[in-house]
Parts: sequence; C-alpha cells; structure tokens
Amino acid sequence: MVAPLAISMGDPAGIGPEVIAKAWSRRSEAGLPPFFATGDARAIAAVWDGPITTIAHPDAANGVFETALPVLTVEDGGEIVPGSPDVEGARCALRALELAAGLVRSGAARALVTGPVSKSQLYQIGFNYPGQTEFVAERCGIAGENAVMMLAGPDLRVVPITTHVPLAAVSGLLSIELIVAKGRATARGLARNFGILNPRIAFAGFNPHAGESGAIGREEIELIAPAVAVLRGDGIDAIGPFAADTLFHPRARAGYDAVLCCYHDQALVPIKTLYFDEGVNITLGLPIVRTSPDHGTAFDIAGKDRAEPGATIAAIRLAGEAADRRAAADA
Amino acid sequence: MVAPLAISMGDPAGIGPEVIAKAWSRRSEAGLPPFFATGDARAIAAVWDGPITTIAHPDAANGVFETALPVLTVEDGGEIVPGSPDVEGARCALRALELAAGLVRSGAARALVTGPVSKSQLYQIGFNYPGQTEFVAERCGIAGENAVMMLAGPDLRVVPITTHVPLAAVSGLLSIELIVAKGRATARGLARNFGILNPRIAFAGFNPHAGESGAIGREEIELIAPAVAVLRGDGIDAIGPFAADTLFHPRARAGYDAVLCCYHDQALVPIKTLYFDEGVNITLGLPIVRTSPDHGTAFDIAGKDRAEPGATIAAIRLAGEAADRRAAADA
Repeated sequence: MVAPLAISMGDPAGIGPEVIAKAWSRRSEAGLPPFFATGDARAIAAVWDGPITTIAHPDAANGVFETALPVLTVEDGGEIVPGSPDVEGARCALRALELAAGLVRSGAARALVTGPVSKSQLYQIGFNYPGQTEFVAERCGIAGENAVMMLAGPDLRVVPITTHVPLAAVSGLLSIELIVAKGRATARGLARNFGILNPRIAFAGFNPHAGESGAIGREEIELIAPAVAVLRGDGIDAIGPFAADTLFHPRARAGYDAVLCCYHDQALVPIKTLYFDEGVNITLGLPIVRTSPDHGTAFDIAGKDRAEPGATIAAIRLAGEAADRRAAADA
Repeated sequence: MVAPLAISMGDPAGIGPEVIAKAWSRRSEAGLPPFFATGDARAIAAVWDGPITTIAHPDAANGVFETALPVLTVEDGGEIVPGSPDVEGARCALRALELAAGLVRSGAARALVTGPVSKSQLYQIGFNYPGQTEFVAERCGIAGENAVMMLAGPDLRVVPITTHVPLAAVSGLLSIELIVAKGRATARGLARNFGILNPRIAFAGFNPHAGESGAIGREEIELIAPAVAVLRGDGIDAIGPFAADTLFHPRARAGYDAVLCCYHDQALVPIKTLYFDEGVNITLGLPIVRTSPDHGTAFDIAGKDRAEPGATIAAIRLAGEAADRRAAADA
C-alpha cells in the first residue's frame, strides 16, 4: 500500500484549515492522492461542515480518505477563533509541523505539504528559524542554506538565489560559489522531483537589460556569467544571463525548465503575477518531498469561506507526483 | 480637419519599418487614426510590398491614408540592409525623429509615435541623450528628468521611478522628493492623457515583502511611506507601499490606475510578462503626446516578416486617444 501524504494545518486561526478541507472536497475532480492533515481537528470544524475523521496513525488515512478528511490530532490549540491568532495556536501549528515532518521522515507518510504559519506568532514561542523550510531542513539533517526554495506554476518555475534580505544587500551577497550551488541544486531538484533529467536552466541578470555589457552594472560579467560557465562545465544546460524583463512572457517560458533569479521579487513578481492563486513552493535539496501553497495565513479572510484552495490542491498534487518519481527512481 | 499622427521610423535596418507598414495594413480593423511615417521610404519598400506614397507635407497624409502608407522622406539612409545597422542608418533615424518631433511641436501633426532606434549606433554619431525620451523632452523645452516613462498594457500601467541605472545604486538614488515628483507627474499624466481625473496610484515596496515593517530593509519606512503621505496631502489618491509580488495579479490590478515602481525591472518584469507584444511606452510630462512600442530594433529578425505590429498598433491608438483627450480638455 502506498503511504498517504501528510499536510500540516498551519496556524489554526489562518486559512490553512479551510483550504485543506476544500482541497479534500475536490479530491476526485483534482485527482488527489490520499492525504491526512495534522493539527487540531476543531480548527477545521470551525470553518467547514464536511466530514472529518480523527485517526490515530497514518495507516488509517487511506481507508478513511474516500469518505472523510482524515486528521491526526495534536494536543489542542486552545480556543480557536478564525482570524485571531494567539500563541497557543502557534504552538499547535508547530506541533502539527513537527508531527507531519517526522512521519514523512519515518516513511509513515510519503511527502510533506505544509500549511501557512504566522512567523511573528511562532517567534513569540521561541521558534528561531527564518521559516518552515529551514526548520524542516534541520529536522532532515540538512543545513538550511542547502535547502533551495523553488516556486512552481503551471508553466513557470523560479528559484530566488537570495531570499528575505534587503534588496540593497543582494549585490554583496551574490557570489559565483552561491550561484553555482543554487544552479546545481536546481538541476538535481528538477531531475529528482520533476523527472526532467537534463534541465535547461536560465539565469536572470541583476541589472536593467542584464547590465548592457557592463554599462549598467557588472554583476552579470563578474558573477553570473562565470557561474553559468562553471555550470556548463559540469554538463548542466545553463544559459544566460538574460534581461529579466524578457524572460517571462509565454514564448520565453517555453525555452527553459526553470529560471534562477538574483533576488526575491525578481522571482516572485512574475510567478505571482501569473499564478497568484495556484503557485506552489517546493523545497529542493531535502531527503524528503516538501511542498506548500505559496500564500500566507491570510488572517483577514479566515473563517469567511473566501479562501481559494487552488494553491493547496496544486501543492498536494505536486507532492504526490514528486514522491512517485522519487520512488520510481529509487526502485 | 484633424491633423495626422507622425511616426518616426526608427533605425531603417531594424523592425521599425516593418511594424509601421503592418500597422497601416491593419488600420481599419484596429481603428487607427490617420498617420504618416518619417524616414527613408526605401526601408519600408525593402521589407514590405504594400502601397507607399511619399508626401511633401503632413497635410497630404489624411487624403493618402486610406489607400497607401504616407511617408515623409528624409535624406536617404545610405544602403539599407535589414538586420545590418550602420551609422548612415543611425543618421537617418535621428533625422526622422527630429522631423517628426518638430512637426508635432508645430501642430502639423497631433501626436508623436517613435519607432525603435539603436542607441549604440546613435552614440557613434554623437547622440548624447540616454534615449529618445530625453531627446524629445529637450526639443520640447523640458528637462529630461521631468519626462516620466510610463509603460501601459491593456489593464496595467507602471512607472519606474529610476530607470537605466545599476540596481545596487537604486537605494541611494531614491529620495522622498524624487518619489513625490514622479507621483505628481503620474497623477497629472493619467488625467491629461488617459482622462482619469482622480487616479489611484499604488506604490511598490523596494524590499521583499515591502520590508516587513523594517525587518528586511527600511526604504519603505524612510522614503516611500513619507512620499505617499506627501502625495495624499496633495489630494492625490496614493496608496502603499505594498509588497511588489502581491501587486500585479488580476484582482490586484483592478485596484489602482498605475503602479509606481522603485526600479526598472520591478516595473518592466510584470508588464512584459503580461504584455510582451503589446506594451506601449508613453512619456508623461511633455507638452506633446509621445508614445512608442515597448520593444527594440530586433535586428536579429529584421526583414524576415516575423515582427509583430501589436505594440505599434497599441502605441498609435493610445497616441490618438491621448491627443483627442488633450484637445477636448483644452477646448
């Protein structure tokens, strides 16, 4: 029997419980593999009147999945008020994440999907990681900096080389070594999770017009082009750097498997412009499959039946596909 | 009689002649107002077998327009080989631009559309402006820094506050004064050219997540938010700063009339991701209407009948509409 997927509920006062429940409701039309949620089942019951079955072990999920949403409960998250986060909810979210990650590490679940958490709430209870990605990486015995964030939409995958740092600091953080490391991790991740064995990886320039041969900045000449040369020496089909504003229209998107971008917004602006409600975050470089919907807790709309489950559905589907590919490759 | 529009042909070896001819071919279906081209008529004949009529004065354009593309010729551009630019072609492009701009200034033509030029070719003949925009501004008696570049697509308008400068220099170039000046010019330009009398102007943050309250950079707190406050004090409906990656999806685009962006790619990436073949550059802050297709000379495809005229058609249409609005407002 194929193990189910584990989905951590995220902050119980956010939209995580609602989008997980809505994804389950669409399981047949979306062709989703069996999954179970970890977290406080009451958070789902507060925003959804569909069937929920609490389970004691992941093995029970597959049998339940056709008729009810299976939930592996963690200690309760205090009083749950959608839209009103508190530290008890944050503790609940963290326990749900730990449980789901541990079950995937153990093999009891075959891939991890994480619901949205509130970092500011988590910081109040002593969580000291930049985000769930680094927490999961550490639980997998991987240094956080070797876990690579990829955002994936229907026909676009982007990887930011730097992430949550001030934009003015990015030029100083870029190095040939960093760009090469992200390029190699991206190539491996595309092969392992997407089945693209010889991916074409495009690099975005840092400056307007990719620097116009040095006239508008030299990061392309001094950092990106040399890194592309190293990657090509590895046998990776790396191309660029290209002017970022020419890289994301439909004809351009057909020309590569992923784009490596120099900074957060260079990657996030195009993917969210195109796929705001269906973008998936997949972490490359981990021993497990981990995806998440590319949105936050959205406390402002929690409990109002307005949350769109598209990104969660896409995250579940991609997690299942990636797990299948890894299992086939390892068989 | 309403005066025609003047379109400078741009570099005769680029795709300018072809897209102008193709725009004329679609004049009826696209509902384009009468226009004439300035430049070397042979550049069009080299890539298009439709009817061309050379005219001696703009007054003749309207009568010709239904049956042939009217061209006001400048001294010839040497031997014209599509895809092979040279300095004679650059001189021809510059004369075409000067002629068209002068005719619009004089009132003989009612709006200016500029075809794509090669800056590196123009620099070889002593042209020393950052681009056509600044050249046109000076010809209009306006300082180049007061001419504001707006890129417009069907449902998105963006203004980059800084343009062709290294990205690492942008933080140091941003100031409250600069942001306020661009905001005011954008508000005036939206009223004057687009007929939007009380425009809502959104501001993009500079850092990831718009700085997360200062945790990831302080440009939002120190520069952008204060500038927004000044503009609101002016009575301008300025909002933000917002995280750039949340500003450009369809629901977000419905919430404003234009976005002011901190740097080139922040503005150009979303507009070109969405509207690569139909983006229009319109210069705000000039006494005349000036638009251009938002693409370059594309020497690599010149003469191959592969150039798309969509952006040129959109530039002509917008120029005509803006000229109509200005005439109505001034009447």
